[in-house]
Amino acid sequence: MSEKELFIQSLREFLSRDVEKVVNKIDKDDYYPRDLVRKLGELGFLIPLNSGLSHYDMLIILEEIAKVSGSLALIVDAQGELAGEMLRLYGDVSQRRNFLEPMSKGEMIGSFALTEPTGGSDIGSMKTFAERRDGLWVVKGHKMWITQGLYADVFITVAKTGSSRKDLSVFIIPKGECVETRKIEVMGNRGTGTAEVIFHECKVQNEHVIGEVNNGWEMVNSVLEVGRLAITGIGIGLAEVALEEAYKWAKSRQAFGNYIYDFQGIKWYFADSIAKLNAVKALAKEVSKMFDEKAKDKGTYVAMLKLLSAIVANEIVDVSLQIFGGMGYAKGSNIERIYRDVRLLRIGEGTDEVQRHIIAKYIEQYGIPFLA
Amino acid sequence: MSEKELFIQSLREFLSRDVEKVVNKIDKDDYYPRDLVRKLGELGFLIPLNSGLSHYDMLIILEEIAKVSGSLALIVDAQGELAGEMLRLYGDVSQRRNFLEPMSKGEMIGSFALTEPTGGSDIGSMKTFAERRDGLWVVKGHKMWITQGLYADVFITVAKTGSSRKDLSVFIIPKGECVETRKIEVMGNRGTGTAEVIFHECKVQNEHVIGEVNNGWEMVNSVLEVGRLAITGIGIGLAEVALEEAYKWAKSRQAFGNYIYDFQGIKWYFADSIAKLNAVKALAKEVSKMFDEKAKDKGTYVAMLKLLSAIVANEIVDVSLQIFGGMGYAKGSNIERIYRDVRLLRIGEGTDEVQRHIIAKYIEQYGIPFLA
Amino acid sequence: MSEKELFIQSLREFLSRDVEKVVNKIDKDDYYPRDLVRKLGELGFLIPLNSGLSHYDMLIILEEIAKVSGSLALIVDAQGELAGEMLRLYGDVSQRRNFLEPMSKGEMIGSFALTEPTGGSDIGSMKTFAERRDGLWVVKGHKMWITQGLYADVFITVAKTGSSRKDLSVFIIPKGECVETRKIEVMGNRGTGTAEVIFHECKVQNEHVIGEVNNGWEMVNSVLEVGRLAITGIGIGLAEVALEEAYKWAKSRQAFGNYIYDFQGIKWYFADSIAKLNAVKALAKEVSKMFDEKAKDKGTYVAMLKLLSAIVANEIVDVSLQIFGGMGYAKGSNIERIYRDVRLLRIGEGTDEVQRHIIAKYIEQYGIPFLA
Amino acid sequence: MSEKELFIQSLREFLSRDVEKVVNKIDKDDYYPRDLVRKLGELGFLIPLNSGLSHYDMLIILEEIAKVSGSLALIVDAQGELAGEMLRLYGDVSQRRNFLEPMSKGEMIGSFALTEPTGGSDIGSMKTFAERRDGLWVVKGHKMWITQGLYADVFITVAKTGSSRKDLSVFIIPKGECVETRKIEVMGNRGTGTAEVIFHECKVQNEHVIGEVNNGWEMVNSVLEVGRLAITGIGIGLAEVALEEAYKWAKSRQAFGNYIYDFQGIKWYFADSIAKLNAVKALAKEVSKMFDEKAKDKGTYVAMLKLLSAIVANEIVDVSLQIFGGMGYAKGSNIERIYRDVRLLRIGEGTDEVQRHIIAKYIEQYGIPFLA
Repeated sequence: MSEKELFIQSLREFLSRDVEKVVNKIDKDDYYPRDLVRKLGELGFLIPLNSGLSHYDMLIILEEIAKVSGSLALIVDAQGELAGEMLRLYGDVSQRRNFLEPMSKGEMIGSFALTEPTGGSDIGSMKTFAERRDGLWVVKGHKMWITQGLYADVFITVAKTGSSRKDLSVFIIPKGECVETRKIEVMGNRGTGTAEVIFHECKVQNEHVIGEVNNGWEMVNSVLEVGRLAITGIGIGLAEVALEEAYKWAKSRQAFGNYIYDFQGIKWYFADSIAKLNAVKALAKEVSKMFDEKAKDKGTYVAMLKLLSAIVANEIVDVSLQIFGGMGYAKGSNIERIYRDVRLLRIGEGTDEVQRHIIAKYIEQYGIPFLA
Repeated sequence: MSEKELFIQSLREFLSRDVEKVVNKIDKDDYYPRDLVRKLGELGFLIPLNSGLSHYDMLIILEEIAKVSGSLALIVDAQGELAGEMLRLYGDVSQRRNFLEPMSKGEMIGSFALTEPTGGSDIGSMKTFAERRDGLWVVKGHKMWITQGLYADVFITVAKTGSSRKDLSVFIIPKGECVETRKIEVMGNRGTGTAEVIFHECKVQNEHVIGEVNNGWEMVNSVLEVGRLAITGIGIGLAEVALEEAYKWAKSRQAFGNYIYDFQGIKWYFADSIAKLNAVKALAKEVSKMFDEKAKDKGTYVAMLKLLSAIVANEIVDVSLQIFGGMGYAKGSNIERIYRDVRLLRIGEGTDEVQRHIIAKYIEQYGIPFLA
Repeated sequence: MSEKELFIQSLREFLSRDVEKVVNKIDKDDYYPRDLVRKLGELGFLIPLNSGLSHYDMLIILEEIAKVSGSLALIVDAQGELAGEMLRLYGDVSQRRNFLEPMSKGEMIGSFALTEPTGGSDIGSMKTFAERRDGLWVVKGHKMWITQGLYADVFITVAKTGSSRKDLSVFIIPKGECVETRKIEVMGNRGTGTAEVIFHECKVQNEHVIGEVNNGWEMVNSVLEVGRLAITGIGIGLAEVALEEAYKWAKSRQAFGNYIYDFQGIKWYFADSIAKLNAVKALAKEVSKMFDEKAKDKGTYVAMLKLLSAIVANEIVDVSLQIFGGMGYAKGSNIERIYRDVRLLRIGEGTDEVQRHIIAKYIEQYGIPFLA
Repeated sequence: MSEKELFIQSLREFLSRDVEKVVNKIDKDDYYPRDLVRKLGELGFLIPLNSGLSHYDMLIILEEIAKVSGSLALIVDAQGELAGEMLRLYGDVSQRRNFLEPMSKGEMIGSFALTEPTGGSDIGSMKTFAERRDGLWVVKGHKMWITQGLYADVFITVAKTGSSRKDLSVFIIPKGECVETRKIEVMGNRGTGTAEVIFHECKVQNEHVIGEVNNGWEMVNSVLEVGRLAITGIGIGLAEVALEEAYKWAKSRQAFGNYIYDFQGIKWYFADSIAKLNAVKALAKEVSKMFDEKAKDKGTYVAMLKLLSAIVANEIVDVSLQIFGGMGYAKGSNIERIYRDVRLLRIGEGTDEVQRHIIAKYIEQYGIPFLA
């Protein structure tokens, strides 16, 4: 067994030993598994890029976690690939020591506070702003759909700091009196502490500004690109487990005197599903390499990957539920939960429509990007 | 306003006055709205075919109810078009007086106990059986996915009464000590009291046998055909309200400086959706007429209609949720609930796959059924 | 047999006796069947609306013709529902006597000269114009994709007569020295004499202006709406014959020791196909009635119908070819020709995209048009 | 420029200089470009695997050729990846010297004679058989859909040599009096000399038996697997050129006052198309590596790839034609030809349905094959 296989093996053991038993609690009770985040940190799975792992390793970690709990995978994504990635890519030494390191160990919970109630994927229309007052930045605004916002110790917050659409800056705002959070209850990926977060004139010291002032547009886009790669891992994981479970069902359940899998129509569902999923996986490998190599076009390619993976994962989970029939519609089956979880993927970290926009804009500028 | 328009008008008023306010309670608390069933009965909407209305009227009533509450529509379907229809089509005078009439008025709750834990859509493999003992029938078996089974006063129960796959008979079994019910919690259409129902040697008198002994196969299929027409009404209703809500959202919400509806890609979603939905509606009108006229091929045509309406309704609700973005994924929005409700339609009253089977078998016997 | 059935019966006899034998010649040699047009006229099938038949009768006639020859159906469409319909709806007594009557009898060939090399479905950008000179109209311009343009005796020609996008007028231009035609060879629907038509300053007398000057925009749209209904008939016919032929093949051809139809995957192709096709047919009946009743929204509904029928017909023909495998790819099989013929339907008389535009624009103005 | 880039560059130059000018002739006149095959041989592109190139190099060569001429690519596939591959993998030294070498240089034309009039993709039902007579094999049978069969100098012929479904052997049969060929005219990929080939008791010496007698089943499957990889290259090439041409059109053609590409609906066509195509390309790279490494599962993976690439290529070419509108339906446009060419890919070298069968059978035996 290679070192990497051992690593994945240990992750799987943790998931099967410590996570499986709370999956239903997370979903049913909207339970945020603070302790699991800590353990993932201790084991080194929480911010893989910070541990020198490759982008594809990161994707596989999320895939494995999502196979057991989509919610936990989304938490890791928010902690590691959004909030964490902003610090990793743009934080200075002190910011990385004080925030990235404890986040990486699961000692500190960090949220990425970007999206707003109006605007959704349209970052340019952001209303949260920061202004200089008495040598400090004062951040005021209303954020929405903030994963683990209810439980965050620190918010990596994007705010407007100038008059143009792209004049954004990024601030580290620890949870405190100026921060109000409100729970948002969601259909799937429950237990992720999704929240509205309202900054009531939070004062931020200069050393808590990440990167250059007014350079946030580019920084946010870099982080979102990594986020899209990460969420692709979640989609792949959800699709894999759905397909596996549907297959077990189809091989063990009878109808009309045959195992369900014996019906050609059902077989074809599997054949089409795995063909599409493996194409997505192959593309994920290629795109991950582009991130390792900091390839110029990685943002466009990850948009394609994110678009495709979200669509394919949703198709596959839908087909898997269909194979289960009534059982798939009942609470308690994994597939019922996965069906609700997977729907987020066509919305979160940029909707399908936003990905198409990114791709189409690239084409207009550079021509059609055929994979070399 | 025509008499029929007045009738629909009065239904809409009832729905908006009495139903809208409990829709969330039904979904959230898994609350079975016993009083609404009674009121629907009082108003004459509960078993429309029993009141001499046409099949298309029945479909429209379900459509209207589903536009406000898919759960309530499913209850009406179970009461009126499954349990009720068996009594209406095959019950004798006394059975109709004692059961159909109170069910029609909403005074009695009736469930159709057909499906079993194994077998699903495969009726022929039924394990529940009834045997003669001391001049009575004794029914023993285990049913599943029984809508309003938790609250039923009477079960219209199908059991095997012979050795061949098709030797089925239908029994009226009042709720009593021999009947055990267990709640099944489901993803959508919550509050419908879905249950496992176990008959522990229930004794049934001869006058509680519906129709001829061993003629149940044909009777069940007749009832299922009406059930498929009815559930099509639910699908149309869910699709319509989803599309209406998505449209209101798209006309009022901005992104990237435009109303969402101003984006051509979004416009096309609506154009494609309404084209498909109207084709389904046109087919529903044709098929309803076939039922009024007792056309020979109605069973095949309603299979096509049910297949198509379930698929199209799911597509439309999915697109509608996508238009809402994050808002559509949050609890409290209608679309989030509708998304869970509508998924049942590709499973209940015969899965997509069962409908395809029915159509394909007809083709093999009679050739391709082109609508005249 | 009803009168209408007898009528269709006589059409079918004609098709099978006189048309089938030249279908390959039409396709292979790009042969325009002038004599068949004459015979269709003699038999009363050429301009059905002019004979007092309903819009659905018209659609059925085109359906029946298309089942034997898509090319001949397209010719009838161009003669009867485009050029003919402009005269029928807007021509004065004399124009109808001198042009519509001989066209209806098949004695005169009439083309509708609307589309231009640039612009396609965008009528407003038309470049052909007519100006007054010496008490006459002088028409100058370049038209394209004109069905039976190579063989037309008369061109019902749309030209700009004012400065606004909508200032159009319609002229009757007999073939003459001022008219140049150039053959366009096309993939399917061959033998229809498709042509570029260039009007080199054609002089038109006042009595050859159809309807009011500058009222052409509305007139053209009315005619196009009927054209969309007509072409739907062609799509339905092509889909029906493809499915019928595929079925015969699937029931007679073996693979892997079974008839092809015995494979569930193949059965499902048929089940899905006929369900969709019958929904289109049901919608076609509804929309035809709207035309008979001159319903206000007919233009929007026919856009939905045209969009859907073209897509569904293409899907069905594609599946049918797939069922034939290699045989469907070889010349000489009907399905190979139908596959090329049917592709036009998503382009001609307004592309898919134009239909979506029409529907979306209506929604913006009046809300979502749910079929009553 | 790397060595490989130079190699591809030289291929592109050849295609643009020598091939482009005869593309229409190949299609229109059903012209078999014998001289181009020779030149491809001289340049080293005809049987890439025989020149030590990787499987992905082979795929790229076919992709590049297909971008200019699908027909020529299919010829190369038949020569190099079917007939040639059988010799390369299983031929002895003398067979390779006498047949593979001249075929590789384009001096000899070789066809792979496998498929029969009945049976299609069902090899086991083969009727052609070879029996021993006077120390020779005597081959008798009827083959169909044989690419370049009209022009072949030698037929690599599969025949039954035993009573079980899998008792197949492979024979080298030079064109001679015992071989009758009949032209089959096809919709697309014209000029490939597709033929029925009838062996009238052809006598074959022992040294013209390839590999072991009765080992043909495995040999044929190995060759077909390479064939599926090869035809994927053709699909990718056709899709790429279609998309490129549609893009040029969309950027230069106006409608409704905008360039076609400015419409969001059209942009999304491109975004979706390139995302899917790049996923196919990524999978092609992975699968090619499996072939280089002789991975155990390569046959299943190439079935997924072939299935997906054929479907995606057809979708993309269809969308591209749609973007062209009427122009795409006219003869003379590349897209019109490509639309006919690409349809073969879902039939040739195993239909979609056969690929699904292969995948589903694998799943049943080994579980779902998730790409590692």
